[in-house]
Amino acid sequence: MQFAKGHGTGNDFVILPDPGDRLHLTAETVAWICDRHRGIGGDGILRVVRAGADQGAEWFMDYRNADGSLAEMCGNGVRVFARYLLEAGLASGPELPIATRAGLRIVREEPDGEFTVDMGGASVTGEGAVQLGRERLDGLAISVGNPHLACVVDGPVAAFDLAAPRSLSGDEVNVEVVRITGDHELEMRVHERGSGLTLSCGTGAVAAAVAAAVTVGDWRAELDRPWRVVVPGGRLTVTPSATVSLLTGPADIVATGDLRCGAEPAMATGSRRAAGTGPAGR
Amino acid sequence: MQFAKGHGTGNDFVILPDPGDRLHLTAETVAWICDRHRGIGGDGILRVVRAGADQGAEWFMDYRNADGSLAEMCGNGVRVFARYLLEAGLASGPELPIATRAGLRIVREEPDGEFTVDMGGASVTGEGAVQLGRERLDGLAISVGNPHLACVVDGPVAAFDLAAPRSLSGDEVNVEVVRITGDHELEMRVHERGSGLTLSCGTGAVAAAVAAAVTVGDWRAELDRPWRVVVPGGRLTVTPSATVSLLTGPADIVATGDLRCGAEPAMATGSRRAAGTGPAGR
Repeated sequence: MQFAKGHGTGNDFVILPDPGDRLHLTAETVAWICDRHRGIGGDGILRVVRAGADQGAEWFMDYRNADGSLAEMCGNGVRVFARYLLEAGLASGPELPIATRAGLRIVREEPDGEFTVDMGGASVTGEGAVQLGRERLDGLAISVGNPHLACVVDGPVAAFDLAAPRSLSGDEVNVEVVRITGDHELEMRVHERGSGLTLSCGTGAVAAAVAAAVTVGDWRAELDRPWRVVVPGGRLTVTPSATVSLLTGPADIVATGDLRCGAEPAMATGSRRAAGTGPAGR
Repeated sequence: MQFAKGHGTGNDFVILPDPGDRLHLTAETVAWICDRHRGIGGDGILRVVRAGADQGAEWFMDYRNADGSLAEMCGNGVRVFARYLLEAGLASGPELPIATRAGLRIVREEPDGEFTVDMGGASVTGEGAVQLGRERLDGLAISVGNPHLACVVDGPVAAFDLAAPRSLSGDEVNVEVVRITGDHELEMRVHERGSGLTLSCGTGAVAAAVAAAVTVGDWRAELDRPWRVVVPGGRLTVTPSATVSLLTGPADIVATGDLRCGAEPAMATGSRRAAGTGPAGR
């Protein structure tokens, strides 16, 4: 099985080219491939498969989370997907239409080699608060397709305990701690619902930019003004908007190769060696 | 740069074939390759280089820790190294002499596909105690080349807080929590000095078997009797001895491929994109 490995600001993926739609990816296989010790390791898998005739794109991004579940879209993943299409000669830029479970996305290759992707609209839906360790922070509830609570703070974002945030509304949300560091510049850390602390989160970066824009002035006047967003894994640029927020950032392919299908999970934990070696040890 | 990825009971390595000794591996390059998000990811690197004429082996295992520091030997790594030599056609079994910084090791391929390696002698050097969270455990101080404190307990090993053990002697040691689960069978968890909680540790498995042997009877009478050792990453077999302890376990190669040398650390964090994109964001 051919693969590539790539990442966007530290959000990393195993790419599986499968133009003919021949791979049958079970949740177990996905979990094995994404296992960072026994497989290749990644936050998820991007399977590259030819899109249907009515999807408006040649390629469909079949995105799976590391646990094998399906995911709709990923702002970091779709940039890596676009980079792979270009490097593999499967598409030409600078505009790359890519079909996703969240619909058609146009990814644009920038002259400096980064990629810009439409993240859909963002809106402030209210206020909220979150318990971070012994600290309580107030924030803005922001929808970027998925729910966020973005808390603008004064001190360094590294000082906050984001290991297990508890939203006081009781809903599970993505939580961002955001510090405005300059003119349209911010740094952030994020706890992603279901994934924990991550190096980068595309929708989180959009939510952080919206919260920062609300903090510095009139949200509507801020539309179409880009924010430089520093995440633990690198740097993104976000242009927040009620209709079409744009996310710009790097995407790198670090390796290509062949996965050994003989090294599957059951084998990796030793069961193939049961014969002749006595009773199973676990 | 060609690479392979493999693991032994979840202890994983990036293998870099370099017969001609041409790779200049800086600590930064090693750290990048072992970075689980921006590189390939691994606990360390095994560079495959031709041994010197006086080393008694054709191949030298140049083992680097994930932080770029040199390491002498690794019971899991040397099995993966041996498996790679066989699969790449660089050596033939069943006896594979491998030069390491700790001297020559003979790795033997077993009929069931596992590998056995000589881990040197093990000896009980005294007693000790360790603080695990709010719990204090007594254990045996055991030397397997490196220092261990192996604590035999009654309950499930999963119940102990091994995140940050504190040896009451003040020395930094590897800490094992060991439960005897049957006749010459044990399960263990390990905190490795400098690495933290790991899925498997070769010398830790030897120390655990020695502690278990002392617990069940006369240590000397126990020599040359193999113990089945279940670690979080799989199953090992240990024959403890004062002179030549043997470690047997699986080794799997899961992928082979090419590393993109263009995706180095500086580039992965965006610095190559500085031109034309304004002031650096970090």
